[in-house]
Amino acid sequence: MSVKKEWPFGITPENYPEFMGKCSEHTTRKGKDLEGYFLEKPDPDRVIYEVYEAQGTGRMRLALTILKPGKVGTEYHMTKGHFHEDPEAGEIYFALKGQGIIIMQDREGQACDLSLRPGTVACIPPGWAHRTVNAGKEDFVMLAIYPDTAGHDYAAIEKKGFIRRVMEKDGKPQIM
Amino acid sequence: MSVKKEWPFGITPENYPEFMGKCSEHTTRKGKDLEGYFLEKPDPDRVIYEVYEAQGTGRMRLALTILKPGKVGTEYHMTKGHFHEDPEAGEIYFALKGQGIIIMQDREGQACDLSLRPGTVACIPPGWAHRTVNAGKEDFVMLAIYPDTAGHDYAAIEKKGFIRRVMEKDGKPQIM
Repeated sequence: MSVKKEWPFGITPENYPEFMGKCSEHTTRKGKDLEGYFLEKPDPDRVIYEVYEAQGTGRMRLALTILKPGKVGTEYHMTKGHFHEDPEAGEIYFALKGQGIIIMQDREGQACDLSLRPGTVACIPPGWAHRTVNAGKEDFVMLAIYPDTAGHDYAAIEKKGFIRRVMEKDGKPQIM
Repeated sequence: MSVKKEWPFGITPENYPEFMGKCSEHTTRKGKDLEGYFLEKPDPDRVIYEVYEAQGTGRMRLALTILKPGKVGTEYHMTKGHFHEDPEAGEIYFALKGQGIIIMQDREGQACDLSLRPGTVACIPPGWAHRTVNAGKEDFVMLAIYPDTAGHDYAAIEKKGFIRRVMEKDGKPQIM
């Protein structure tokens, strides 16, 4: 099912579960899918995040990510993170709920991060890997928009990892 | 100047004027540019809206629209509205500030509308013309994201107009 026939529609911080029902793809990432990503070993059956993806949205795809609150050791829950296969494809994030941090780095190792709170739009340039971290105590929910040419390259990040990590220090998230 | 070299960055309801400074294109639409769009003739020198467009954002373009509050007769300020030249190109809107209404219609004359308040994401399907109306008393500010293949077809709407209009009735905006 494509989202196309259900259009037009608006997504708000309150009604995003309706959007989930319109999506053609649903992925659940558990601890066992993220082994080697965190410094410590995650509980294999713990749900870390879920992604609902819609296609047919006009040369762009929409993906809603729900990142569960929690930590593996002192490291906050996060997505795998990826580069795009298409080096010209950027991405836009829109934070709907909760408190997140986006960590980015390019292939030369230049890194940066941005705080995401409801209402923030984050622009990820072409050629930058991106990972999202839930730095809060409730679900972090965000909508990603990317060209349908983008593709996902997880391998480069799986091998090298991100330079920055979000760890708890003195009870608060800190970027290390 | 492209926005590319200024990346990555986040846009919030507070800092969007910073984004305006990163944009390569700036368009001001005055009453004289919108003659024939409203039922009454607008003051030719009144600024109705401004658009700041960024390129180089990864196969997608970003456009920030600032729609001034006000009415022409009893009709609320609005954008020209357009179809995309690329029939496969959709568009996503993020409302940042104020109260807006998006009016859409397809080439067969099917029409719909959506309320836009800060935090709402609106999905405009491929093949639907879209126009934004400021239904509030302050600036209505929104960010549009569309594939860089989209293009603008203003001519079809200029000739036929939109079926729905937003008019003041009993002191409140009403869709007619």
